[in-house]
Amino acid sequence: MIKALFFDVFGTLVDWRTSVARASAATLRPLGFDLDWLAFADAWRARYQPAMEDVRSGARPYVKLDVLHHENLRKILPEFGVRDPEPATIEELSRRAWRRLDAWPDVVEGLRQLRTKVLIAPVSNGNISLMADLAKYNGIAWDAILGAEIAHDYKTNAAVYDAACAAFDLPPGECAMVAAHTGDLRAAAGRGLKTIHVARPNENGPGRGEAKPGGPVDFAVRDLLELASVMAS
Amino acid sequence: MIKALFFDVFGTLVDWRTSVARASAATLRPLGFDLDWLAFADAWRARYQPAMEDVRSGARPYVKLDVLHHENLRKILPEFGVRDPEPATIEELSRRAWRRLDAWPDVVEGLRQLRTKVLIAPVSNGNISLMADLAKYNGIAWDAILGAEIAHDYKTNAAVYDAACAAFDLPPGECAMVAAHTGDLRAAAGRGLKTIHVARPNENGPGRGEAKPGGPVDFAVRDLLELASVMAS
Repeated sequence: MIKALFFDVFGTLVDWRTSVARASAATLRPLGFDLDWLAFADAWRARYQPAMEDVRSGARPYVKLDVLHHENLRKILPEFGVRDPEPATIEELSRRAWRRLDAWPDVVEGLRQLRTKVLIAPVSNGNISLMADLAKYNGIAWDAILGAEIAHDYKTNAAVYDAACAAFDLPPGECAMVAAHTGDLRAAAGRGLKTIHVARPNENGPGRGEAKPGGPVDFAVRDLLELASVMAS
Repeated sequence: MIKALFFDVFGTLVDWRTSVARASAATLRPLGFDLDWLAFADAWRARYQPAMEDVRSGARPYVKLDVLHHENLRKILPEFGVRDPEPATIEELSRRAWRRLDAWPDVVEGLRQLRTKVLIAPVSNGNISLMADLAKYNGIAWDAILGAEIAHDYKTNAAVYDAACAAFDLPPGECAMVAAHTGDLRAAAGRGLKTIHVARPNENGPGRGEAKPGGPVDFAVRDLLELASVMAS
């Protein structure tokens, strides 16, 4: 019996791509830059996994994802010909862009229903303040914010899943990871958690996302409303 | 400008005394015990500070408050003549009693209003699962659960206040501790946080609680509804 649902956030709950593109345009267009904003968002996101890998491998101590987002933004700006904006502008954009991400249409109501049945928490690589701001922006209420910051490590390392189960005092078999990314679910299953795949066929652009799991999972749902309707309370 | 409110929980937000008495009676009376249930709750609570002191002093590594509650219950049972209940009964009572604590009448609505203005989080000595269950029981939505478990230390040690500010990426001067206990507020002020006293004149029984702060604080309010009405958004 599942007593807690752990949610991946970027891509699974929120549309990071169009939201980051919009936030980047809102900040940089008034400074005279006219970029392919979706390509800009993609480039920013492309540096996400390599940056975390330094922490996962032990080459670098844990730092919050806010720090990595800021470093990654500084790296891609010159690639897009954006030279020498004010440091405060970069800092503000890097923080703000990843806090104003629109939830997919089923998410707010789906989570509201699920929270009446089980414990729900983000188990994201995003840090606590980022998760709190993102929840507030979208009108989401969590039971707790778990994930990378309480583990001081990044998914898909085992410590993140283990720390989430431990925080709720639950054996992993009574917890389920919910994600639109098969790799995340595979890692969670490796720690004994149940796995639930959510289809997000347009995460990386039209038709470029996981419409179906790319490997074995316990359940696969169309969206969180479907999950809420099939989940026993 | 205050951007986050950190709440003490036991006594400040919830009436632990009558709730623990009720839960203890519900478990032990059917086993044939007829105790002074309020005295039982007081005795259980009286072991709270000494048990945490072992962790605060460094004599013992951090363990969750659930563990201390369980140990303390085992110590007081013989004092009340309750001998040899099943270990599962003790375990169940120790977990359950501190998760079904009724909020004071102003709390749920007060927190709902405050959450529309600033970040709100418990900064309690209670562990994450205890705080999550308590919030769910009362219908409270937090922005995050901070406090002892993320600091691996107990109030009033500095690490707990410091870790809460750090989790929200805020300087302590933009955070306020809200409590009905002057000692908690004094310690928070020592780390640079603002302090808000809430009157709970009946916490330890009729007329036995802090109706007013016992030392200097930044603000003193009657209840959370008053705090919400004076708080700028």
